[in-house]
Amino acid sequence: MLGFARNCRKFANFSTVADKFFKVEVVGNKRRTSEPKTRKETKPRFEKKVKQRISDYLKQMATPEIEIQLAPLRAAVKESGDLVRDLKAKGAPKIDVDRAVVELKARKKLLEETEIALAPKEASFDRLKLEDLLKRRFFYDQSFAIYGGVTGLYDFGPMGCALKANMLQEWRKHFILEEGMLEVDCTSLTPEPVLKASGHVDRFADWMVKDTKNGECFRADHLIKNSIEKLLNDKKTSAETKKDCEDVLARLEGFDNNDMHQVITRFGFKSPITGNDLTEPIAFNLMFPTQIGPTGDFKAFLRPETAQGIFVNFKRLLEFNQGKLPFAAAQIGLGFRNEISPRQGLIRVREFTMCEIEHFVDPEDKRLPKFAKVANEKLVLFSACNQMDGEPAKELAIGEAVKAKTVANETLGYYMARCQQYLLKVGIDPRRLRFRQHLSNEMAHYAQDCWDAEILTSYGWIECVGNADRACYDLQQHYKATNVKLIAEKKLEKPTEVNVVEAQANMALLGKSFKKDAKKIQGALAALTNEEVEQMEAELKENKLFKLTVDNNDFNITPDLVNIKKYSKTLHVQEITPSVIEPSYGIGRVMYSLLEHSFRQREGDEQRTFLAFPPLVAPIKCSILPISANEKLVPIIEKVKEELASYELSYKLDDSSGSIGRRYARTDEIGIPFGITVDFDSETLPHTVTVRHAESMTQIRLEVSELGRLIGDLCKNRQTWQDAQQKYPKFETANE
Amino acid sequence: MLGFARNCRKFANFSTVADKFFKVEVVGNKRRTSEPKTRKETKPRFEKKVKQRISDYLKQMATPEIEIQLAPLRAAVKESGDLVRDLKAKGAPKIDVDRAVVELKARKKLLEETEIALAPKEASFDRLKLEDLLKRRFFYDQSFAIYGGVTGLYDFGPMGCALKANMLQEWRKHFILEEGMLEVDCTSLTPEPVLKASGHVDRFADWMVKDTKNGECFRADHLIKNSIEKLLNDKKTSAETKKDCEDVLARLEGFDNNDMHQVITRFGFKSPITGNDLTEPIAFNLMFPTQIGPTGDFKAFLRPETAQGIFVNFKRLLEFNQGKLPFAAAQIGLGFRNEISPRQGLIRVREFTMCEIEHFVDPEDKRLPKFAKVANEKLVLFSACNQMDGEPAKELAIGEAVKAKTVANETLGYYMARCQQYLLKVGIDPRRLRFRQHLSNEMAHYAQDCWDAEILTSYGWIECVGNADRACYDLQQHYKATNVKLIAEKKLEKPTEVNVVEAQANMALLGKSFKKDAKKIQGALAALTNEEVEQMEAELKENKLFKLTVDNNDFNITPDLVNIKKYSKTLHVQEITPSVIEPSYGIGRVMYSLLEHSFRQREGDEQRTFLAFPPLVAPIKCSILPISANEKLVPIIEKVKEELASYELSYKLDDSSGSIGRRYARTDEIGIPFGITVDFDSETLPHTVTVRHAESMTQIRLEVSELGRLIGDLCKNRQTWQDAQQKYPKFETANE
Repeated sequence: MLGFARNCRKFANFSTVADKFFKVEVVGNKRRTSEPKTRKETKPRFEKKVKQRISDYLKQMATPEIEIQLAPLRAAVKESGDLVRDLKAKGAPKIDVDRAVVELKARKKLLEETEIALAPKEASFDRLKLEDLLKRRFFYDQSFAIYGGVTGLYDFGPMGCALKANMLQEWRKHFILEEGMLEVDCTSLTPEPVLKASGHVDRFADWMVKDTKNGECFRADHLIKNSIEKLLNDKKTSAETKKDCEDVLARLEGFDNNDMHQVITRFGFKSPITGNDLTEPIAFNLMFPTQIGPTGDFKAFLRPETAQGIFVNFKRLLEFNQGKLPFAAAQIGLGFRNEISPRQGLIRVREFTMCEIEHFVDPEDKRLPKFAKVANEKLVLFSACNQMDGEPAKELAIGEAVKAKTVANETLGYYMARCQQYLLKVGIDPRRLRFRQHLSNEMAHYAQDCWDAEILTSYGWIECVGNADRACYDLQQHYKATNVKLIAEKKLEKPTEVNVVEAQANMALLGKSFKKDAKKIQGALAALTNEEVEQMEAELKENKLFKLTVDNNDFNITPDLVNIKKYSKTLHVQEITPSVIEPSYGIGRVMYSLLEHSFRQREGDEQRTFLAFPPLVAPIKCSILPISANEKLVPIIEKVKEELASYELSYKLDDSSGSIGRRYARTDEIGIPFGITVDFDSETLPHTVTVRHAESMTQIRLEVSELGRLIGDLCKNRQTWQDAQQKYPKFETANE
Repeated sequence: MLGFARNCRKFANFSTVADKFFKVEVVGNKRRTSEPKTRKETKPRFEKKVKQRISDYLKQMATPEIEIQLAPLRAAVKESGDLVRDLKAKGAPKIDVDRAVVELKARKKLLEETEIALAPKEASFDRLKLEDLLKRRFFYDQSFAIYGGVTGLYDFGPMGCALKANMLQEWRKHFILEEGMLEVDCTSLTPEPVLKASGHVDRFADWMVKDTKNGECFRADHLIKNSIEKLLNDKKTSAETKKDCEDVLARLEGFDNNDMHQVITRFGFKSPITGNDLTEPIAFNLMFPTQIGPTGDFKAFLRPETAQGIFVNFKRLLEFNQGKLPFAAAQIGLGFRNEISPRQGLIRVREFTMCEIEHFVDPEDKRLPKFAKVANEKLVLFSACNQMDGEPAKELAIGEAVKAKTVANETLGYYMARCQQYLLKVGIDPRRLRFRQHLSNEMAHYAQDCWDAEILTSYGWIECVGNADRACYDLQQHYKATNVKLIAEKKLEKPTEVNVVEAQANMALLGKSFKKDAKKIQGALAALTNEEVEQMEAELKENKLFKLTVDNNDFNITPDLVNIKKYSKTLHVQEITPSVIEPSYGIGRVMYSLLEHSFRQREGDEQRTFLAFPPLVAPIKCSILPISANEKLVPIIEKVKEELASYELSYKLDDSSGSIGRRYARTDEIGIPFGITVDFDSETLPHTVTVRHAESMTQIRLEVSELGRLIGDLCKNRQTWQDAQQKYPKFETANE
């Protein structure tokens, strides 16, 4: 389907504004204060190793002075938004609407960039330091590095692997188990006809330009952006050209191939490597092609998303659910996208783990009883209206948002609230999370509504989860392609009498006359509406001939070939194509955001960095650190290990000779939330140990026999560290 | 690497004897009694939907009468085995050895088939019934069925998905967590050079023949087998030809392309579809090809195994382990193999989940302290010797086997024992499990030893796990290809003084003379041995010239280009390339075997089939079955649900109106081990419910508040159903 094709692309086309700015206005109450946040960084984001900082935006208030400066920009966005609305209302030509939308986007961008520029310059995040830690402790790193590496492919090391596994396990619990979803596991290899039907073969593409001499490829929008930025940084560029450049940059996101070709020609952009001329932008399909079997004529692709596997299994799943709607199916698995030139680490990769849900529901009734459970959940919503009016995102209870029709229906709203719960549980900072609604021109024509969960990182607002109401499009497309009915039966409130006019094929004669086409013709005859059959009947009567068009071929139907029957029948059920609500998670993106949000530097010691993961997802739950290599401690260490193992808690024993402070620092770096120290006081019966909370560096002392339950509870969010501190005596040390 | 290439192939080339026979001789004591087992089935295995049965071999004894008939066949195998040994000992030409091995295999096959033919004919397994259940309850089914399906691709439905997830979770716990392995998660997309180095590009292939007219492809050995079987079943075939046919069938496994071509020509085999002529056998590489990026010249494949990802990350992993050996890395992920014509359901598929371990160890010391923990574990070992002597497999403690050098070393033995523990834990029948050693001609030239865990199913003995000592081959191949040293440092017992003769390149001059080749030449100079440098020194002195050959190119080295240094240095460490022990699990195969081994029919009611999974891996742990729809029971049902949820136990509520017996049958079918019935006695305080053990259909009654702990314990193997029966009162009902 185009829709998700576009949707998929969205995963790649997340906000191209490198560093945005975040402002929350409290509509309901509590939770967040209205705060403009910002980043100092203004360097181009393509300088890979530049030291990037997000300012301490969370603590900053939008001062009245700043708001005064922003006011005209907000007004300009609103003016533009009003124009778009007006044109649409008047049914103006598409080209006029598109032009107005490009202008709207340019103004939105200017507003966001000004917000960043005006925001205070304090900074606390250093991406280089985080990247260094992640590489050094092998969370993840470039694949096949000893062979020179491949861009857009990453291998996860032990820490990254465990973090990801924990996030996936929680996802499975939070969604599949708690909601009773039907999990499936389909193949990555996908035959071409499936992706033809879904729209991917024709439309899942990016524009690229080629070096006319050596054939080197560049993503067209990237090439323009880089070339423009080079011009902007060049002192010799005239003020006039610079203004032109800025205008292009602002509009680039809305450009099609012709616009881009025009810019390349007008500025005379060449290959940045060779200086050779460039071709016109050409579409490059982003799926990895392959063939199944030895003949070479069974074309296939690696799936660009897991959703199709669920759609093609719809019939089996509906049966599994005993024919009842609504139900949700889910899949955790790999997706593949052959990006032209991937950058930005884990955010844009060629092979990635997705978690997708397809919730099938009666298109005429998208209410959901359990919505009541989440109705009071507050979300930061950046609605299409807010965006067009130059307004900031607003916090609102999801129940209110659905009531006000801001969010299309209860089912979609429910999944947005559940999405927020999941993201917060795994450790996303609630102040750096928003749900942004797609503007109507961003959505596929069939989509009803779409809200992306966007997370603020040093790369700007990243789309990490899509929550879309995709209507009936997907199932209908596969039905069209296969002629297999992908429908559900809905019980009618009362039986209905209907008149049927049917054209039954005389298969014996049909087979004789049309050979292999007979079956197709039979299908087409069966699919005719009452009116069409009556029209055919009339023509057959008059001309003894009816031209039936099937797949662009005309077939001459004569009266002997069909038998027209009229009768009435009682219907107890109605056939419907279910609508689909689709939450789609890019786990790598959520994970990268989590790494940024968990990254800390010790106050007063910038070199001492660490990761403060929620215990729930921490790769390793505790460290065991004997204070000395003294033999006497060994049996106590063994007791601690047994206690932890019996609660299935992972641990890392560090009995190396480093100072305890040094060993703490090492375990803090890989995000171990709890450090268990065995010291000489541990010898006294009953054995006790100290437990240190890495993030706060506070310690308590407790019996070994209580360890498993305490840490188990902390890891499952059944207790907080504050609770533990109240319950057990504090332990103070001069070690750190 | 060829080795695993061949190894991988092994996954496909599991025993082609459709139905084998299993005999265990008790060498140690206990556990198993010596029993010949058999299957009735003798139909060709390519008749897909034939009703197949494994005889009730587990209960049958090898009668003395049978042994008398088998004796001459055993002797014949031994004679042939002795000849192979003798030829090898004498260093006879390879062709003679190969010929003798083909004869040996033919005789082994005849022995196994006779064992099957002679075994009693009772039968209890009906594959059709199992397949029907698996399809109907959507454990798994053919992918893209609505598009006509693709052979060798399967989608897992909710039940299969949960079963697989539980098996993988247990694998992660049993190996990665308990052994402290380093887990990695690498990409499926793999650049060509990596797989060139590993040997896959050149050697990971099957022989196929093509229809000379329409290009249709057939796997050569399959085509011969099918054609021969057709001849054998043809009444017009002469006795002489039949004998010839049988001879070919027996030897087919050892055939190369020439042998196969000869057979096809001699018998005049044609395409079974069109009757057209066939080409000579041609090699077809079994990897799925693709390209990365838009240019089309970055060739890549989908990985045929996960192992390579670990090898290319060796340096990072060694660092992660602080430079220390031994350590083990593991990966759970997808593998892809473009089989020519996959058959046999989950056993031979094109996309599958693998779990692989690479244990890196000092090649000179493969002892393992924790081996002591498993030394008494008894395994059924089918050693190369047993196979060559026509002897049955023998049960032996792994400690004994390593001591006797039957199994090469402690590390390999350890993983074999751990493998058995895992397989039994997830539910493989211990009486249908054996470890078969590769004959020396089955192993890659560099491999030291290899034992496949084979599981007996209705398809015969299936190789499900490979346990191989692959020596240093893999790391060395990648080192050769990349020039990145993949080595570990081993501390010398005492520092050693060594003399060094070194040729240092004069890089400035070298660069001038050889431009881009300079770096390569520098590398080659640095890699010369002491002796080679001295030889060069002599030539330079005499001729003022030395021809250095790098990658088949000669370079003229003159005295000004190199500086020869001689000195002595003290070594504290020695550089070694670690050996690799590789356990490799095909999870789909283990899962299929488990499904067969768990399949049961109720005594006296053949139609009532069910799956008796171990609770540990059961997709759903319990069902909740209210005896009536009476409102009074609702709060008790809610209590039960809460109790189970608090122990994270999955359940399925079936409150449909069917009789309780019918609902039991439905939940038994999907392998739910425990059924919780809420009846009218449940109302009395404290609330009680009955718990039914599906396999034995026995029931007990207990308080709702005890449910979670009991079922949790049963699912984690902390209690057995027998224990529970002793503890809680029995509940009897006439419902079933």
